[in-house]
Amino acid sequence: MPALAGAECGSVAAGIRYKAREDMTVFRFAPGTTVAGVFTMNKCPGAPVDWCRAALKGGKARALVVNAGNSNVFTGKAGRETCERTAAETAALVGCKPREVFIASTGVIGERLPTDVLLAALPRVMEGLQQEGWAAAARAIMTTDTFPKAATRTARIGDATVTINGIAKGSGMIAPDMATMLSFIATDAKIPGAVLQKLLTRGNAKSFNCVTVDSDTSTSDTVLLFATGQAKHPRVTADSPPSLLRDFARALEEVLHELALMVARDGEGAQKLITINVTGAVSAKSAHRIGMAIANSPLVKTAIAGEDANWGRIVMAVGKAGEPADRDKLSVAVGGTWMAREGGVIAGYDETPVVAHMKGREVEITVDIGLGRGKATVWTCDLTHGYIDINGSYRS
Amino acid sequence: MPALAGAECGSVAAGIRYKAREDMTVFRFAPGTTVAGVFTMNKCPGAPVDWCRAALKGGKARALVVNAGNSNVFTGKAGRETCERTAAETAALVGCKPREVFIASTGVIGERLPTDVLLAALPRVMEGLQQEGWAAAARAIMTTDTFPKAATRTARIGDATVTINGIAKGSGMIAPDMATMLSFIATDAKIPGAVLQKLLTRGNAKSFNCVTVDSDTSTSDTVLLFATGQAKHPRVTADSPPSLLRDFARALEEVLHELALMVARDGEGAQKLITINVTGAVSAKSAHRIGMAIANSPLVKTAIAGEDANWGRIVMAVGKAGEPADRDKLSVAVGGTWMAREGGVIAGYDETPVVAHMKGREVEITVDIGLGRGKATVWTCDLTHGYIDINGSYRS
Repeated sequence: MPALAGAECGSVAAGIRYKAREDMTVFRFAPGTTVAGVFTMNKCPGAPVDWCRAALKGGKARALVVNAGNSNVFTGKAGRETCERTAAETAALVGCKPREVFIASTGVIGERLPTDVLLAALPRVMEGLQQEGWAAAARAIMTTDTFPKAATRTARIGDATVTINGIAKGSGMIAPDMATMLSFIATDAKIPGAVLQKLLTRGNAKSFNCVTVDSDTSTSDTVLLFATGQAKHPRVTADSPPSLLRDFARALEEVLHELALMVARDGEGAQKLITINVTGAVSAKSAHRIGMAIANSPLVKTAIAGEDANWGRIVMAVGKAGEPADRDKLSVAVGGTWMAREGGVIAGYDETPVVAHMKGREVEITVDIGLGRGKATVWTCDLTHGYIDINGSYRS
Repeated sequence: MPALAGAECGSVAAGIRYKAREDMTVFRFAPGTTVAGVFTMNKCPGAPVDWCRAALKGGKARALVVNAGNSNVFTGKAGRETCERTAAETAALVGCKPREVFIASTGVIGERLPTDVLLAALPRVMEGLQQEGWAAAARAIMTTDTFPKAATRTARIGDATVTINGIAKGSGMIAPDMATMLSFIATDAKIPGAVLQKLLTRGNAKSFNCVTVDSDTSTSDTVLLFATGQAKHPRVTADSPPSLLRDFARALEEVLHELALMVARDGEGAQKLITINVTGAVSAKSAHRIGMAIANSPLVKTAIAGEDANWGRIVMAVGKAGEPADRDKLSVAVGGTWMAREGGVIAGYDETPVVAHMKGREVEITVDIGLGRGKATVWTCDLTHGYIDINGSYRS
């Protein structure tokens, strides 16, 4: 991961829950940094999500504090105080307002976060901040992840080249415990907060919002995008022509997409990355919902884990989505081989190429609804014994 | 299971898919038998579901033909013809109209049902019909079930005693393959079809519709209720006072409830039956949806499989339901022990009794939303390695 002007970071072993590994990361951003964010739709969000939502209204960011091991969720007044104290102490060290400090926590729910332990580590981590700290940060924010997740791109704004760096953690969109999805992206471009928010919302809809591991929505999911404004490029305003940011939007979407796919690939217990293309739905939204119904079906996911080309389960999942669908117009393909067309198995259907495709690490399902022009792609992973192992015992 | 006047049944090994076991069941009902039914909400239902929905409009039933091993789903024109031929041949043997013959199939999707094999077995099964055939029928309709499911009750209508017998199959509400939920109930009471339908719809809402194994909705789910009219009791009409059928409704709901709980208990791979009580929601419907979000959460179900009293995952599931909920008013109990109250863990919470409760075969979760008076109870099972074993390999 390249250095990025205006963004320094560092990670330490604060000892919040894990022993002998870095579990706390701080980013310091240059004065003038703008920020955008998207958050979990869960109705019981953690205190850090509440804090970030409120802080986002200011539109400015100078620091980000992330810890792994305790999510500070369902912790009531104590949880709010943890956020307030963390922001106040960080602001004092950075020299900014508390509302310019963003906070993200991931880990166990319902246990009080040991605030003093976190705050005691703050001065230590601030001393070691550096522009080259991205790779270490990607590792420090991990929980049940099996590999760190980072992506980078460059983009042209006018004649200038800007950089976009992103890291993520998560073994799914999932999970209140150790599997929350967090992602932090920064760029040295100078982009007003409102424009940044629009870009992030659009990119997120095509990436993180199209990924599911187990249908469980974390109480802490957070994606934040920071623009440090250190690069020299033509001025960007809300009224700039769309062409000015076209390449930046492309690069941002690539970073988000790459990170989102890493999350799906690292789904708890996952052995295969599954891509689900839906075409011919009555709308893009309908296609997305059908895709998610397939992606969240335990029966589809266990069949793929078993390398069984069981397209009947795909038909079932389309039907249970509640979206317009006509059994007799439905077609299903796996790995590019059409198995069923317009309501029935294809005459002379030969399973051989499908069986071969199912044995690979990447499985592609295509469903044509046959009703309209709406399409969508979503990603998930298979459901294996590993998922049961991880989630049936981890807390004890 | 007691004999029931006006209902005879028999089962044979037709050889549709399974070898050396009974896989086909026929019921013959007395002339004048009325019928009610509820069916899957899946948008890609099987041909037998289409057939039953149409036949139900006549309100009369003389026969029911059930097979296990092939669901006749996604079989296009051939599937419709199978139903038409089955009904015509059965009607000829019974001496009734084809529309008085009901059909239910369960098993693999997308493979043509060998109609000739089914029809060849018909005369054989008709020869052996008897009022004592219920227990054999409960076994013959099984697929991945590990035990047959049957329940019986008596009820008073006026001074007369009537009987209600029911059988079910299903390792969940789930699944397009071998785990469809089918249930057939009969009574010797004489009740008009419209009244019967009202009773079944109401009873089903409190029983089978409150059970989930894995959130996957079968393409074939079917519940049929037959009233043979052989018992002598005061005449029942649409205008009868509600008190006349109060005890019958109670007994019917008990049969449905007992069968539904057997389905949850026999969920694929299940080791524990989970009861989820939701109170304090804004409405009964909202409480039901929250209960189902908990019941369908893979993280809640794996935690229970691991005997881990992980109430954070329950909070997550409440929040993801999309129903009105306020984190700071939420309370959670397991096995009658309150763990969290109004947004935080209980002071001095002692996990000991909860841990003991979790080790049992039945686990009870209670969630109080703290917003209103809506309540609901739903049932499910834990998510175990057994589920992955059954569904990751069964077809091959």
